[in-house]
Amino acid sequence: MARRSLLRERCSASTAQGGPVDAVLVTRPANVRYLTGRPAPGSALLLGPDGTDTLVAPATDGPYSGGGHAVDELRTCQLAGEEGDTAVAAAQLAVSAGADSLAVEEHDLTVARHRAIAADRPGLRLTGLACAVEQQRVVKDDEELSALRIAAEITDQALGELLESILVGRTERHLALELERRLIDHGAEGPAFATTVGTGQNSGLARHVPTDRRVEEGDFLSVRLGARYRGYRCQIGRTFVIGTAPDDWQIELYDLVFAAQRAGREALLPGISCRDVDRATRQVLDAAGYAEALGTSTGHGVGLEIGEDPRLSPAAMGKLDACVPVTVEPGVHLPGRGGVRIDDTLVVRPAADGGPELLTITTKELLAL
Amino acid sequence: MARRSLLRERCSASTAQGGPVDAVLVTRPANVRYLTGRPAPGSALLLGPDGTDTLVAPATDGPYSGGGHAVDELRTCQLAGEEGDTAVAAAQLAVSAGADSLAVEEHDLTVARHRAIAADRPGLRLTGLACAVEQQRVVKDDEELSALRIAAEITDQALGELLESILVGRTERHLALELERRLIDHGAEGPAFATTVGTGQNSGLARHVPTDRRVEEGDFLSVRLGARYRGYRCQIGRTFVIGTAPDDWQIELYDLVFAAQRAGREALLPGISCRDVDRATRQVLDAAGYAEALGTSTGHGVGLEIGEDPRLSPAAMGKLDACVPVTVEPGVHLPGRGGVRIDDTLVVRPAADGGPELLTITTKELLAL
Repeated sequence: MARRSLLRERCSASTAQGGPVDAVLVTRPANVRYLTGRPAPGSALLLGPDGTDTLVAPATDGPYSGGGHAVDELRTCQLAGEEGDTAVAAAQLAVSAGADSLAVEEHDLTVARHRAIAADRPGLRLTGLACAVEQQRVVKDDEELSALRIAAEITDQALGELLESILVGRTERHLALELERRLIDHGAEGPAFATTVGTGQNSGLARHVPTDRRVEEGDFLSVRLGARYRGYRCQIGRTFVIGTAPDDWQIELYDLVFAAQRAGREALLPGISCRDVDRATRQVLDAAGYAEALGTSTGHGVGLEIGEDPRLSPAAMGKLDACVPVTVEPGVHLPGRGGVRIDDTLVVRPAADGGPELLTITTKELLAL
Repeated sequence: MARRSLLRERCSASTAQGGPVDAVLVTRPANVRYLTGRPAPGSALLLGPDGTDTLVAPATDGPYSGGGHAVDELRTCQLAGEEGDTAVAAAQLAVSAGADSLAVEEHDLTVARHRAIAADRPGLRLTGLACAVEQQRVVKDDEELSALRIAAEITDQALGELLESILVGRTERHLALELERRLIDHGAEGPAFATTVGTGQNSGLARHVPTDRRVEEGDFLSVRLGARYRGYRCQIGRTFVIGTAPDDWQIELYDLVFAAQRAGREALLPGISCRDVDRATRQVLDAAGYAEALGTSTGHGVGLEIGEDPRLSPAAMGKLDACVPVTVEPGVHLPGRGGVRIDDTLVVRPAADGGPELLTITTKELLAL
């Protein structure tokens, strides 16, 4: 598989952490999935010194029927005993195949598992792989972008249907459930993250847990949802007004957040630094006196995880490349009154190709529902 | 909080891992929840050397409205910066409060976080807490058992409603979705684990991912589901026949699995070893020639996690105590034909109190639906 070959090349070229590496052990679930193309909970992937790749799966507690598909040139083996650790077994394989050193994911492997490997194979030198796989995951290939596009399409469909239904009198909790059901009806594997619905004074909160508060005339209603498709997750956030005539403060606040979000979206071009995108979004709200309203970031990468690299924040390092999908998601919440959030998922593209590709296409007009 | 006091007592009494411990750092999410009574993703709990308990929460990416409730005598602090690590911050607090040593959860803390703590506070001696909190969680208190009872009640209701509906012609995927929706309608926070529905040749599999296969006359239909309530998870599994007259092989196989499951249930008494419960279940199937059909375990503890200690398996150590909730869940799958699984959640009780308390009370008769 091309992704594993690329990782091998990068690791053998790198001498950063104590010389070139014989073998690589990948244990972080999203990284294993990325490198094998299949969900493999609890499994460890070994890129062996002999050029062989092996996926070591845990013992199951009974007959199993998985959802994965066979992948070229990947050996798989399954542990028999209940007590076995997949990482220890993979390290044993590495040594049998002639490895003197093994690069492990120190940000995933626990102290206990690391120690178990060292105790089991004392001659094996353990080094750090750092976030090599996460870095490789930042720029998406066509297969990944196509899964994200489908995830966004499903998300737009689920949201669109909700907007056509009667909302007044229904609770945040029921609306969130209905959105998640509609995601699945349209082909999602599940929600990409816990769906948020906030109405009235709960609107505009970043991480609101839906309550039994009912939607009322005059409320702001903010929703945030996303589909998971073939493991890939997208995110949309929208805010609406309930009833026919939004108040002046609602129009004003909406326009402000919309302007901030547009500034962020328009900044998304290959080569821009992540912190400059964040600044573009943030300064619109800062200038209007809402500097405190924003959290630590105004967007993030999406893919096999909902919050992956890069982060769009004042402290972020690095620049954006083409084919990197990110969210732009500013919001302002006024305690006791409510607020506005607008989130989109976009793919960075050069201006010559038309600039950023908007995946979540539901309208950002201030709809009165 | 009594749970934290008990952990402190156990730690100061223990001299197993390098002498008594000044301070304790808990990072495993289910353990933090157990000791604080609230969901606190990404948070680290410090039991300080001065008797003060502090929950260190990560910085949020915007205004936050949590679902937790205030807990007595627990200080909370939230990190401000995006880069901060809650475990490192908690270790800093420990040192400020006078700790020379800190016991950490080596089975949860990654190598990278452990190293970050050591680098940040080189004078601090890091020891291992082992699975002290997990051990404390095995025997449940009244509050926990009451949450589990409600979770089981919700689960029985959701399953009961499904049995009253028309099943023929519907897909495994839709039935699984409907069960999860009904769990939530009846008050669950969500499913305790991914709901399994298997029909025809997919019936009786332990970890079947629901497909688009439709229920047909004559099929075995096996379902496995559970509600999550206040964080507590229960599990039920049942197998039915579709149509009016089960075949002889279906009756025979069902009676066999039922007998194995009953043997396991009846073995559940305080003081019995976990492997003896497993053996009671297993030997019924072994004797009938299905030794290979079972996986590594025939049951497990439930609580804040769906598969927690104890395990009921041939290799398990330890004995069952009163007030330990476990599943008993044997199954046989015949490749190409289908099979039977029957899972219950029960609480271990002395015979004088009536023996094991069955939480999942849906009938185990072989219903023809």
